[in-house]
Amino acid sequence: MRQANALFTNCRAATMAGEAPYGLIEDAAIAVTPDGILWTGPSPDIPAATAAFPRHDLGGRLVTPALIDCHTHLVHGGNRANEFEMRLHGASYEEVARAGGGIVSTVRATRDATEDELIASALPRVDALIAEGVSVIEIKSGYGLDIDTELRMLRAARRLPALRPVEVRTTFLGAHAVPPDYKDRADAYLDEVCIPALKAAHEEGLVDAVDGFSEGIAFSPAQIARVFDVAKALGLPVKLHAEQLSNLGGAAIAAGYGALSADHLEYLDEDGVRAMAEAKSVAVILPGAFYTLRETQAPPIALFRKHNVPMAVATDLNPGSSPMNSLLLAMNMACTLFRMTPEEALSGVTCNAARALGLSDRGTIAPGQRADLAIWDVEHPAELAYRFGFNPLHQRIIGGWT
Amino acid sequence: MRQANALFTNCRAATMAGEAPYGLIEDAAIAVTPDGILWTGPSPDIPAATAAFPRHDLGGRLVTPALIDCHTHLVHGGNRANEFEMRLHGASYEEVARAGGGIVSTVRATRDATEDELIASALPRVDALIAEGVSVIEIKSGYGLDIDTELRMLRAARRLPALRPVEVRTTFLGAHAVPPDYKDRADAYLDEVCIPALKAAHEEGLVDAVDGFSEGIAFSPAQIARVFDVAKALGLPVKLHAEQLSNLGGAAIAAGYGALSADHLEYLDEDGVRAMAEAKSVAVILPGAFYTLRETQAPPIALFRKHNVPMAVATDLNPGSSPMNSLLLAMNMACTLFRMTPEEALSGVTCNAARALGLSDRGTIAPGQRADLAIWDVEHPAELAYRFGFNPLHQRIIGGWT
Ligand SMILES: [Zn+2]
Ligand SMILES: [Zn+2]
Repeated sequence: MRQANALFTNCRAATMAGEAPYGLIEDAAIAVTPDGILWTGPSPDIPAATAAFPRHDLGGRLVTPALIDCHTHLVHGGNRANEFEMRLHGASYEEVARAGGGIVSTVRATRDATEDELIASALPRVDALIAEGVSVIEIKSGYGLDIDTELRMLRAARRLPALRPVEVRTTFLGAHAVPPDYKDRADAYLDEVCIPALKAAHEEGLVDAVDGFSEGIAFSPAQIARVFDVAKALGLPVKLHAEQLSNLGGAAIAAGYGALSADHLEYLDEDGVRAMAEAKSVAVILPGAFYTLRETQAPPIALFRKHNVPMAVATDLNPGSSPMNSLLLAMNMACTLFRMTPEEALSGVTCNAARALGLSDRGTIAPGQRADLAIWDVEHPAELAYRFGFNPLHQRIIGGWT
Repeated sequence: MRQANALFTNCRAATMAGEAPYGLIEDAAIAVTPDGILWTGPSPDIPAATAAFPRHDLGGRLVTPALIDCHTHLVHGGNRANEFEMRLHGASYEEVARAGGGIVSTVRATRDATEDELIASALPRVDALIAEGVSVIEIKSGYGLDIDTELRMLRAARRLPALRPVEVRTTFLGAHAVPPDYKDRADAYLDEVCIPALKAAHEEGLVDAVDGFSEGIAFSPAQIARVFDVAKALGLPVKLHAEQLSNLGGAAIAAGYGALSADHLEYLDEDGVRAMAEAKSVAVILPGAFYTLRETQAPPIALFRKHNVPMAVATDLNPGSSPMNSLLLAMNMACTLFRMTPEEALSGVTCNAARALGLSDRGTIAPGQRADLAIWDVEHPAELAYRFGFNPLHQRIIGGWT
């Protein structure tokens, strides 16, 4: 149903804007027009200009900005349940690798999948996020590691919004891993595959941002910088998987390129945090991988607070290290495992997730923002992170559409 | 729709019976009648007697026994999101307690709730489990800690199957905690409240089993034994929250009463495991509480395997230590946190969960069992534990009803 103009009344609004915790407005109303949010505030202050707007009583429910999953690898072929099971039967990483497991198995399955097959396997994952009030999903390439498949992944991702009511932001992640055919020749891979693929994808209009994986098992900061130089020349913003398993200084390199975000960050030190603060990069916290890999070093949450680095929270939805398909669960894990507060977790999937994607028109409930809202059967926003394995979504409103 | 007789074809059946991993039958068929499962086996062997049964093509999907959540505190008043948030803002347990938090806050909210209010708050939790293919939910009392409220909790639980297509098994847990008005007078609480409440609840036909919490912060094994003596006299089976935070020998005490199960068990030693093995008690594994409380000592999975103690897995759904409303997530946590295998996790929510409730007519797909089935959009049963925050249920069939 189209909400040409609408006035949502009788709700509590966690606006994620303003001074109050959660930007919470009790007994709130929200006026929306086809152009977005016109006004929000306490019921007694409803502006006369909205007197003719059709009213929708929300029954006292909580309203938040619609959620944003700002880091996923949602488009991919196959799954790694077999590898999960082998590991739990005691197989070593080497045995799993010999059996064809690890990221190469996802690369193989993704290369083998047609664009339509990639879309078909992605849709249930998209649906599960939408059912939790998600309005924007970032999706990365990075399981092709050849030019054709990298582009196919991005094309598949870009077609999802025609099939489901969701916005997709695509990130080129050619520098995700060195494929077996380029073993020990990472620079050749960058020159012959990654950078040409990036240019071709950009040419086709498929790239919103450029990402990489800076790690001993992937690319060095110097190699990442080569990719980022190309991104910069193309006018594309960058972000980086950094400091997940060790501290290589990747986040600082990314900050030097004015990165939208650096992601994971378990091993980041205070110098790196300072660099991110200066660049105004967002720290994207990914507890699903930490949980799945049974890591023990949490990201430096206290330092992010100290230096006012905004924190986002995302699923990292991927078939290997984080087969987690719930952003609400990511919020709970951010609190339980990393001791983020429920308010930080909710900021992490709304205003700060928007910022991690370079989106300034959503993530809060405020005049001028898109009318992307989530309405919840809960009394207090802390409940969204407190319960887990439970979805209290009542209704999602996207661009004023219910 | 009633399935008078039905033949489900074109599926893979994880029967959880027989020698193969998962009791898996490829290209399976399952014949059901109003009396339950008549036959299951490979398609070529479909018995002639089922020739006239209406056929239902399951499109190659996986079928498992419907799931069973054998340990929950699903009926309760209020929630503890505020306490969750306070703790994450750095409040100590003492500060939370001074603010009215902890189990006493749930006791207060439960005492304040009418039977209808308890049911209304329970239904969304029931619905979430049903949506995951759950057919049986065990529900405990234990937040009343007075006679009236203990009975009201059980009455509320017993009314749920009239409102939703699910079976409920009720467990009396009067020995859950010593209420504030009986501080330092645990034995008086047992004599004046717990045991009279148990007798009254049994008189009213509200009790399927009797449970207790054996822990330094709750009741000693000797006190638990007093409750179990009453249960024994009433002919009721027992189970016990034991060895969660320390080793008091509770599981062995329970085993002495032929307990259906001992639950949690992180601190159980090999003598306790042996006692459980002799009593044929089930070890109920509850990773949600371990995760929420950030415990570090896992239950002795290797010893359970060594001594052939069957392991069940449950949500422990409760507002304090495990506000987790997903049995699929419990399966993933049992694997990820405790290194159980996906097959053990699936046994834990099917055949072994049935056994933990003393139910011999369900939990496997086999002739004579109830026709309680879950049909999944997955290829292999390991996927059920591998993915998390994702529900691949296609359809649930209960007692032959779709
Ligand atoms: Zn990632
Ligand atoms: Zn319990």
